Amino acid sequence: MSKVLKGIGASRGIAIAKAYRMVEPDLSFEKKEVTQCEKEVARFKKALHSAEKELLELKDHAKKNVGEEEASIIDAHLCLVNDPELISMVMDRIRKKRVNAEYALSETINFHLSMFGTIENEYMNERVADIQDVSKRILSHLLNVHRLNPKLITEEVIIVSADLSPSEAVQLNKSFVKGFISDIGGRTSHTAIIAKSLEIPAVVGTKQAMNEILTGDLVILDGINGKVHINPTREIIENYKKMSLQYEADKKEWFQLVNETTLTQDGRLIKIGANINTPKDVHTVLSNGGEAIGLFRTEFLYMGRKELPSEEEQFEAYKEVLIKMDEKPVIIRTLDIGGDKGLSYLQFPSEINPFLGFRAIRICLQEQMIFRTQLRALLRASAYGNLKIMFPMIATLTEFQEAKNILEEEKDKLKLAGIHFSEKIEIGMMIETPSSALMADHFAKEADFFSIGTNDLIQFTMAADRMNEKVEYLYQPYHPAILRFIKMIVDAAKKEGIWVGMCGEMAEDERMIPILIGLGVQGISMNVHSILRARSLIKKLNRVEMQALSERLLNLTTGEKVIEELEQSIKIN
Amino acid sequence: MSKVLKGIGASRGIAIAKAYRMVEPDLSFEKKEVTQCEKEVARFKKALHSAEKELLELKDHAKKNVGEEEASIIDAHLCLVNDPELISMVMDRIRKKRVNAEYALSETINFHLSMFGTIENEYMNERVADIQDVSKRILSHLLNVHRLNPKLITEEVIIVSADLSPSEAVQLNKSFVKGFISDIGGRTSHTAIIAKSLEIPAVVGTKQAMNEILTGDLVILDGINGKVHINPTREIIENYKKMSLQYEADKKEWFQLVNETTLTQDGRLIKIGANINTPKDVHTVLSNGGEAIGLFRTEFLYMGRKELPSEEEQFEAYKEVLIKMDEKPVIIRTLDIGGDKGLSYLQFPSEINPFLGFRAIRICLQEQMIFRTQLRALLRASAYGNLKIMFPMIATLTEFQEAKNILEEEKDKLKLAGIHFSEKIEIGMMIETPSSALMADHFAKEADFFSIGTNDLIQFTMAADRMNEKVEYLYQPYHPAILRFIKMIVDAAKKEGIWVGMCGEMAEDERMIPILIGLGVQGISMNVHSILRARSLIKKLNRVEMQALSERLLNLTTGEKVIEELEQSIKIN
Repeated sequence: MSKVLKGIGASRGIAIAKAYRMVEPDLSFEKKEVTQCEKEVARFKKALHSAEKELLELKDHAKKNVGEEEASIIDAHLCLVNDPELISMVMDRIRKKRVNAEYALSETINFHLSMFGTIENEYMNERVADIQDVSKRILSHLLNVHRLNPKLITEEVIIVSADLSPSEAVQLNKSFVKGFISDIGGRTSHTAIIAKSLEIPAVVGTKQAMNEILTGDLVILDGINGKVHINPTREIIENYKKMSLQYEADKKEWFQLVNETTLTQDGRLIKIGANINTPKDVHTVLSNGGEAIGLFRTEFLYMGRKELPSEEEQFEAYKEVLIKMDEKPVIIRTLDIGGDKGLSYLQFPSEINPFLGFRAIRICLQEQMIFRTQLRALLRASAYGNLKIMFPMIATLTEFQEAKNILEEEKDKLKLAGIHFSEKIEIGMMIETPSSALMADHFAKEADFFSIGTNDLIQFTMAADRMNEKVEYLYQPYHPAILRFIKMIVDAAKKEGIWVGMCGEMAEDERMIPILIGLGVQGISMNVHSILRARSLIKKLNRVEMQALSERLLNLTTGEKVIEELEQSIKIN
Repeated sequence: MSKVLKGIGASRGIAIAKAYRMVEPDLSFEKKEVTQCEKEVARFKKALHSAEKELLELKDHAKKNVGEEEASIIDAHLCLVNDPELISMVMDRIRKKRVNAEYALSETINFHLSMFGTIENEYMNERVADIQDVSKRILSHLLNVHRLNPKLITEEVIIVSADLSPSEAVQLNKSFVKGFISDIGGRTSHTAIIAKSLEIPAVVGTKQAMNEILTGDLVILDGINGKVHINPTREIIENYKKMSLQYEADKKEWFQLVNETTLTQDGRLIKIGANINTPKDVHTVLSNGGEAIGLFRTEFLYMGRKELPSEEEQFEAYKEVLIKMDEKPVIIRTLDIGGDKGLSYLQFPSEINPFLGFRAIRICLQEQMIFRTQLRALLRASAYGNLKIMFPMIATLTEFQEAKNILEEEKDKLKLAGIHFSEKIEIGMMIETPSSALMADHFAKEADFFSIGTNDLIQFTMAADRMNEKVEYLYQPYHPAILRFIKMIVDAAKKEGIWVGMCGEMAEDERMIPILIGLGVQGISMNVHSILRARSLIKKLNRVEMQALSERLLNLTTGEKVIEELEQSIKIN
């Protein structure tokens, strides 16, 4: 029986293969009182030891069959298994509460995880997945339960799971795994992250896949449209085979554009940059034809550690990126924490509406030591490349001026100390609050460039939290209200002759790109893996036609009508 | 030593008198294990009985010396003291957990209060204050601690407290109490509510008053500017005496305007309406010169009860308001819960950002039974007056159209059933999301009127939760971004010839009113006690001058500059 599941296309591409279910082993247990605590501690230590041994074997396997980088995931797990703090917390619990090791371990892990918050965020999700994964490994040894062994897969399959664990992912042999389907999560779920980094198509958030799909079922995974076909008809298979061939041909074509600039059909130059989280990401930017770093999210330098990064550490990171990018523009955004991104060592009072709370530049202007350290590191690094500094979450001109003043003060201090920095650093801002969009005419007189941040701008404009299932339908990127805001921002930038780009999720959306070209955005910045596709798309677009199209869209009444008109006007794919 | 404290002017007016501190008695206790549970239960029952006796005496006193309405507060407390559910919960806790009555009571009360959420809201704050007050009364009897007796006050005083409790307020003799100062809370704190209803000046949120002021200190309470002067100089006293006389004269002048319409100096008609919560509020609307109900917040019909109000109950409430208002316009807003307003019997999943969540029309469109019941009650009531229906939190045109369609369906059903309703009901909407402001041109073609809701509009536009202390400085009603939005909305309404008003907190602000007149707002709706002051102010304003002023303000860069320009251009007070 043919059946279709809807999900989120988390990694592009099409796969057709047999399904392989990765079922979670049953790791359930009961809380027990123990009388002989030391015996229980010994049992826990034995399980730890077995887990460690297993991980060392896995690491060996990963190094030989998968790659150094993947093997490093196992290193992180080994660190956790050997973490003295974690071990002693579990042993303390066993002794003080006189409970079984399984219970003591789970309690300790839950306490650990409670420090991470609940919101979707790529970096945090990876850390949480690592901790849960290690916990399950130790638990399986305590309970003597055997876990699945994905190393044994020796035919082409599509992996179906609730959510993939990091250590499972490492064991997978890329030449056999054609795709991932997972019931849990969105674009930043663990499966999504793994799939993107392995460049294997994935559909996540299917909810029902583990119920509906059996190992051996023939499955079509459509990572472009976020669909899964279970036991499809021959006709559907044939269509998808054609689509898949076309997609592979497209991909080849895209990679021929790696050293080109991005011009519209009628010769308008658009700059395509990449969004990165760490200096390690730079090499994939260049190998994927990135012309700039449009957004370096520096908060990742601050995460997963126990204290603030020093000026020196930051300087080295920024310098590395600037040198590697070799005079290509690098927009570095100052610390953007708060909202859904917390730091365990920097606790602020909990907030009822964190998205409308103490975040980003608001924190930096108040906690100036943190801000000034980052600015000094940036200034010193500016000597090594083409740095542009960008402030996030600006809502008032006063904030922007304050941030610039602080930067000037730090410049003066460096000058006095005889420390060299570039005199040509451009200072720009994210436009992601409605107030900054409405006041863009004034901001354009003060800023050297604008970068439109769509995620927040859409959330505030529609008054809807996109992570909230009950109202995510109101998160409408194509809504004419959003397009009007973008136009307002671009027009203001043009009038003052400053550069305007977009670095939000929408910048890589193939339906949004024509609108952005039409409205006059000069640059877009995105996930590295989307750059060449975007370049290929833009080369087929005519700027004058897109301008006319955008004018029409601005006067439509609803998001649905915009999508309709877009679909009629542009043939995409 | 003269000293000044800043706070929030929660009730207007000036008072000069000696301070009287209302100190909370020490009601601290320890958790104890009890062996004789039944003895402990008996002790609890005795305390209940004493509390009840005391309340009956208080009620008697209040009836004789304060008024019937105030005495009804004591009735609510008597209900709580006799609430069988509450009593049995406490007794159960004593018996099952073998704890002392104090602890069992506190736990039970905390559990109760946890159902109320934490956000400032006038109605909920009153309920919470009642429960805490009763709990303290019982506790004081358990602990044999004597509470202050404000009945004994026999000279003119200004009451200084952390926050006033409802039963304390009832005991106060209005002829001796000249003002309230409280350290806690904002405009909806309990002290603020009491002060407004007694028409006594108050400053709340002073934080330090209980530390700085001693009983007997001479205090000037400036409820107009939110200031408290402690032991002021003779000069300051003289100035304030003059201000106070002026204020009293102003008030007399205002009350002469009670039967007038509201015209600007150059003859432009502005309609001033009142915001109400229950039908009981209507008589003060009329006695304070209200020309309309600009906002009937129907959610209060849904609160403080155990299930949804029936169609019949709602019909009676709406009908009562419409009849009492005698063909004057009555704008009734459909259910606006969610965000900071919950209903205990209607639980939705908790949200990370409730202000950006499942609220108001979003709930109504999904929970259509609730919505349709309310619409039917409204339609049936429409036969009795001049009803206008208003939908809150509209973000997309689709939502507005859906809401109107549902209303049409209910009209058809009533027609079929032969039930009478008015054919002339106007259907309008709150403009309180940035998207509806941006799309006001399209909405103006579909709606019969707009009412601008400033609280939410400002929060979303500035991306700042005004209840969040860390970012409340960004809640800037005078920010040019907000003024630009208001202009956008008014211009769109004018173009389509529909009525546009404002019903948010800003509509009664004397610095905002000139701007609103200048931008072309046709009506404002506010707290009943502000209507006559607003009328008096508007009569002194010249619409053409305000128009020129508004144009200047729209081009300023910051909220601070708007306030500066306003202060230079208009002499207020």
